[in-house]
Amino acid sequence: MSSAGGERIGVGLVGHAFMGAVHSHAWRNVHRIFDTPLTPVLAALGGRDEAKTKAAAAKYGFAAVETDWRDLVARDDVGLVDVCTPGDSHAAIAIAALEAGKHVLCEKPLANTVEEAERMAVAARAAATRGVRSMVAFNYRRVPALAHARKLVGDGALGEVRHVRATYLQDWLSDAAAPMTWRLRKDKAGSGALGDLGAHIVDAAQFVTGELITGVSALTNTFVKHRPDGNGAQGEVTVDDTALFLARFTGGAVASFEATRYALGRKNAMRLEINGTKASMAFDFESMNELWWHDGADPGTEAGFRRILVTEPGHRYLEGWWPPGHGLGYDHTFTHEVADFLAAIGAGTDPAPSFDDGLRVQRVLHAVETSAADEARWTPVAGTTASTATAGGR
Amino acid sequence: MSSAGGERIGVGLVGHAFMGAVHSHAWRNVHRIFDTPLTPVLAALGGRDEAKTKAAAAKYGFAAVETDWRDLVARDDVGLVDVCTPGDSHAAIAIAALEAGKHVLCEKPLANTVEEAERMAVAARAAATRGVRSMVAFNYRRVPALAHARKLVGDGALGEVRHVRATYLQDWLSDAAAPMTWRLRKDKAGSGALGDLGAHIVDAAQFVTGELITGVSALTNTFVKHRPDGNGAQGEVTVDDTALFLARFTGGAVASFEATRYALGRKNAMRLEINGTKASMAFDFESMNELWWHDGADPGTEAGFRRILVTEPGHRYLEGWWPPGHGLGYDHTFTHEVADFLAAIGAGTDPAPSFDDGLRVQRVLHAVETSAADEARWTPVAGTTASTATAGGR
Amino acid sequence: MSSAGGERIGVGLVGHAFMGAVHSHAWRNVHRIFDTPLTPVLAALGGRDEAKTKAAAAKYGFAAVETDWRDLVARDDVGLVDVCTPGDSHAAIAIAALEAGKHVLCEKPLANTVEEAERMAVAARAAATRGVRSMVAFNYRRVPALAHARKLVGDGALGEVRHVRATYLQDWLSDAAAPMTWRLRKDKAGSGALGDLGAHIVDAAQFVTGELITGVSALTNTFVKHRPDGNGAQGEVTVDDTALFLARFTGGAVASFEATRYALGRKNAMRLEINGTKASMAFDFESMNELWWHDGADPGTEAGFRRILVTEPGHRYLEGWWPPGHGLGYDHTFTHEVADFLAAIGAGTDPAPSFDDGLRVQRVLHAVETSAADEARWTPVAGTTASTATAGGR
Amino acid sequence: MSSAGGERIGVGLVGHAFMGAVHSHAWRNVHRIFDTPLTPVLAALGGRDEAKTKAAAAKYGFAAVETDWRDLVARDDVGLVDVCTPGDSHAAIAIAALEAGKHVLCEKPLANTVEEAERMAVAARAAATRGVRSMVAFNYRRVPALAHARKLVGDGALGEVRHVRATYLQDWLSDAAAPMTWRLRKDKAGSGALGDLGAHIVDAAQFVTGELITGVSALTNTFVKHRPDGNGAQGEVTVDDTALFLARFTGGAVASFEATRYALGRKNAMRLEINGTKASMAFDFESMNELWWHDGADPGTEAGFRRILVTEPGHRYLEGWWPPGHGLGYDHTFTHEVADFLAAIGAGTDPAPSFDDGLRVQRVLHAVETSAADEARWTPVAGTTASTATAGGR
Repeated sequence: MSSAGGERIGVGLVGHAFMGAVHSHAWRNVHRIFDTPLTPVLAALGGRDEAKTKAAAAKYGFAAVETDWRDLVARDDVGLVDVCTPGDSHAAIAIAALEAGKHVLCEKPLANTVEEAERMAVAARAAATRGVRSMVAFNYRRVPALAHARKLVGDGALGEVRHVRATYLQDWLSDAAAPMTWRLRKDKAGSGALGDLGAHIVDAAQFVTGELITGVSALTNTFVKHRPDGNGAQGEVTVDDTALFLARFTGGAVASFEATRYALGRKNAMRLEINGTKASMAFDFESMNELWWHDGADPGTEAGFRRILVTEPGHRYLEGWWPPGHGLGYDHTFTHEVADFLAAIGAGTDPAPSFDDGLRVQRVLHAVETSAADEARWTPVAGTTASTATAGGR
Repeated sequence: MSSAGGERIGVGLVGHAFMGAVHSHAWRNVHRIFDTPLTPVLAALGGRDEAKTKAAAAKYGFAAVETDWRDLVARDDVGLVDVCTPGDSHAAIAIAALEAGKHVLCEKPLANTVEEAERMAVAARAAATRGVRSMVAFNYRRVPALAHARKLVGDGALGEVRHVRATYLQDWLSDAAAPMTWRLRKDKAGSGALGDLGAHIVDAAQFVTGELITGVSALTNTFVKHRPDGNGAQGEVTVDDTALFLARFTGGAVASFEATRYALGRKNAMRLEINGTKASMAFDFESMNELWWHDGADPGTEAGFRRILVTEPGHRYLEGWWPPGHGLGYDHTFTHEVADFLAAIGAGTDPAPSFDDGLRVQRVLHAVETSAADEARWTPVAGTTASTATAGGR
Repeated sequence: MSSAGGERIGVGLVGHAFMGAVHSHAWRNVHRIFDTPLTPVLAALGGRDEAKTKAAAAKYGFAAVETDWRDLVARDDVGLVDVCTPGDSHAAIAIAALEAGKHVLCEKPLANTVEEAERMAVAARAAATRGVRSMVAFNYRRVPALAHARKLVGDGALGEVRHVRATYLQDWLSDAAAPMTWRLRKDKAGSGALGDLGAHIVDAAQFVTGELITGVSALTNTFVKHRPDGNGAQGEVTVDDTALFLARFTGGAVASFEATRYALGRKNAMRLEINGTKASMAFDFESMNELWWHDGADPGTEAGFRRILVTEPGHRYLEGWWPPGHGLGYDHTFTHEVADFLAAIGAGTDPAPSFDDGLRVQRVLHAVETSAADEARWTPVAGTTASTATAGGR
Repeated sequence: MSSAGGERIGVGLVGHAFMGAVHSHAWRNVHRIFDTPLTPVLAALGGRDEAKTKAAAAKYGFAAVETDWRDLVARDDVGLVDVCTPGDSHAAIAIAALEAGKHVLCEKPLANTVEEAERMAVAARAAATRGVRSMVAFNYRRVPALAHARKLVGDGALGEVRHVRATYLQDWLSDAAAPMTWRLRKDKAGSGALGDLGAHIVDAAQFVTGELITGVSALTNTFVKHRPDGNGAQGEVTVDDTALFLARFTGGAVASFEATRYALGRKNAMRLEINGTKASMAFDFESMNELWWHDGADPGTEAGFRRILVTEPGHRYLEGWWPPGHGLGYDHTFTHEVADFLAAIGAGTDPAPSFDDGLRVQRVLHAVETSAADEARWTPVAGTTASTATAGGR
């Protein structure tokens, strides 16, 4: 009697830190909330430290552990591999899993380099021809407010996009005495705020507008170059603390982006504002249940940004949850994400965001780093049309 | 390897509508998030319609169903009964369960009448002597922002309480064509907005202040007296659509309360503002991760209400969840609630809010109805000291 | 070349404290901003202390001073008397001025008692038959946001009014050591927060809804009964510190009102929220350029309270000021007020709010005090229809 | 008796459109509100169209008109010249007035080119040696919230500045059918959103931080290239519609700036956020009476951005106005501005912002245009130290 959601699919999750915890939560609950074509089973948890992995598996509810991800990928009871490791191992794990015929959900940024991302995208395309699905975990697409904004923009309600401004502000490095972590090492994380936070707002902006970034002018900075490594020594910070860039979109919009871990008092201010010819939208993840929408067609004396509580029956993903005004939290976005992934697998379609979408973000990140290293010079993003990739006034 | 949280305890849940769904979610996840002394097992779901109950059990993950709550209470594999039915059956189920030695979590309001609530409180006190625990499900106490406000007030940071203003505003009855439900029938629900919404703000205000309401002056209203019953006829609305009352607290504070389902545009505006001699707080559930706090000791030119994001490591319940700024939602409050209940059971202590706390709220609701029926005349709340229960003037 | 606004009219202003200063500012500027049919001239300032009055006259730009208001009223160069004294002298000055054929603007509350207000209203009606105009200075009607709300409600955009909630929260008495002032003496001020702040929200609520309050149930309180009088002794506070009341309106709406000087952290939170069958509005004077409007006809998934910046060309009073988004302040409301008064004088019509409107507010204040002294019992407001003046129940 | 503020000084104001109106308002009221060492007299208004200028003079209260600014500057009764014309005539008028020994207040941006601004700064320095004072009208420095932020930053409360983000968003060109104005012609206005709006945020950011911008990377755009000229033809828009740029400050902070007239729904969103090592501030002119301040020294569980209502007695400029919570509007900033100018003249000191400050802003605007025309390449700002003027990387 405890079944729901049809045929079972074994989930093998690699990585058991923050992302591993929240992904587990999603897999555990998704079929209890949504009508899914498949019932996920928490088959195996992967991690290099056996004791820690076993403790995490017991906590999260996994049936088994593996200390080598290759063994996890090879398990017969694993039909889907969820990659929650640091970026330096994404390509190896994801490609191996796809080649083994396992569906793959991979955390963002897709990889640490464009080259890795390209190989992953190739593997994903090849796997898709065999019915094996892949998705990159840009969970902010699954915030109901942003999903609804995308719907409105896609319906033409915003008109032509003129301005995009996106920031992702955190403050956990404000304190110069905060310790080193793998997130501050280029060899593990690829980049700093740029890949961790900037990747989210690049994807979110491309998702909501339905357009691509064609070029950037960028600046990066590292405020604190050494931090205590926990062993009494100083570790070297080899990534950016902040990245800012200007950009243009395929449709002619101009944009600014900023990612930082030094915005004292801002905890998770993933913000997106878009001004179009017909309407404008604004969003701040710190108030994630609200979408602010200005409809330019409202009479001038009655126009204003509306605070839409995105908890109504007609809003995406809300069918699974609670009545209006009973807001959702961060983890719900992951439950939505895996619901969408299971739906695509069940339907035999390619889910979004695809590895190609992840590659597109990676190319933007690469252009940002290239520009920042070259006097902020305008840098086209590979794979977008040259005609729009020009900078500066007229 | 899939165990966590120690010894198992079977949960028998009666009722499978909105509250049943959200309680199930909490029982399913609590030990995956918090360190609980007991591991809940979703043993049995109770409901009168067998087909619907079976479907719900499959969806939520219960192992069995019962169509008579007496059978559910009697099951050997049920150690805890969770009462999520309309108010008219709370007393019977809860008392039977307590007498059978089962711990009881009961939805609010505790009962439909003071007399029922008194019997339940008697039963709860008797059960406690046998180590059987009971709790009433005022989940808003488990909103981290309100839990933190309570901590600050308890620490003396607010000083003496002078003003309390509380509203609980919804709008789902704004449309005069919205259909009848059991919530609009006095025989099932006891009262309307008063018991459903007013009970929450009465408990929350008493919880955060640590004081009791001593008397009230009240007004109730039913705007729409007949609604379509779904069978082509008109059903009679026999409860209040809105209840407003003034009140005094044991410490001398004055207060206003308002509950309504007709505040067009307000979806779940459960709001509480308290002004003290040293500080003030404000809260709105529509922005549930925020506590607004004004510290009167700040220099005049730098003082202001602070928007505290209640997602920091030191905030109550946050140890189980995500990093700062990654907000929680409505369902998390239930996970906190059952975590606290399991902790109390494990520790052999009486949890709060107790059935006596539920009874105190019931007495306030009763005083409200009494006053509203008697020209809004000041009406003392039974069980609070007479000295403070005076109204008007100075 | 320095003339504007047509024929000159001499203004005699009695009182030179806070209200005198802001009224002077309005008279000095009104014809420079708006097209007025008359050009005000600051003819004479009245005050009992000659030295202080002379200093104030020089500062504000008055041509002469008078230490006896009778002399000011009698001056040939004074065609309009502006009464900015404490409430105990309103009736005497205003009635004498009206009888002398001078137009009268009188600060609120109109008087300290209903009896005084009635005599003033009689005098005003008599004067009007001779073309002499009178107005009571409820300046919040001239906040563009509230003027626009009134327009929308008057146009039927809100539908039937169901809920009104109004508060006027200040905190300047929070400190128990704050000194005595005339505002805390019943003989001078009539009442405390009730008359000073409560009068404003009563008038504003009646203005915006276009309805009258028919009855109230009330509670008042004095938290600090003695305060230092500046001479080393303790003065007795003989007015209310706070007044709260429930109310019903002629159209069937229910309401709550609260006025206090003890809401720590709230500086001038004159708030009004109205929920109707078609729309809702919300306003807070601390953000006075914003009107929040929820249109119930918006599609459910796009509905929300709109933050309307009331600085658009089509908004009332904005024709005289600055471009959109360039907000106004407190003093502008007085400039609007005297512009409306001059316009009415020029057109030979009776301006609003009239002394009768002031009397209506006075009767509500009286009912509040009566109820508060009688166990909060429901108390009809004199002059409203008995049929609606019933309380409680259904 | 109508005098206040000491010796009289005749004001000659050139230009009678929007800026002329609001400056007149300030000159008319400043000595009625503040204690000024000089009493301004509205001596003469300058404008090329005699009829229009005469009408404006009558409206604003000027005693005379001049149709040639040279005649206005030459008048004996003019001791101070206030330049409110388009930017192309600033240099000629201001330099002539300074050379004639008249104090000069000049609207922003100081000039249309760096060369003009340099000549003006030279003239101002020379005049200062003769006791003739000059000031550029960056009125946002006189918003009490920004003045208070500057004080806090100057006192060290913010620590080292790490991030600056500034936007100035309007929407009056969103409609592609909005007509041509002189503001869209490069020969009159110098630039578009850059000089009109960008100049304000550059000055405000440099003012509040106390630091200078050392280099920029920029992008400008013109969305609508032709607009109806009112004569049935299409006028060519020869300025930017929007300008965005990244920047670095002398102290090492990184920054982003954006000015636009196409942000649909944003009416006057002049926003500034600064994150430091000890605190953060945020401001939005659409809520101009609020300063948001996050104090990093607050305990983690009680920290949050404080909404400070900048209307307290200790706040700058508030001594002249109303009690706490009674907010100010746009025009008050000009009254503050001329109060500060008169105070400096009276004290014989050089006021800020000086023409040199205006020149510094002009150099930033020039660097922005240079970078935008050169593939957004990093462009140092003339006059700032080379050591800090490097971009990109680390």
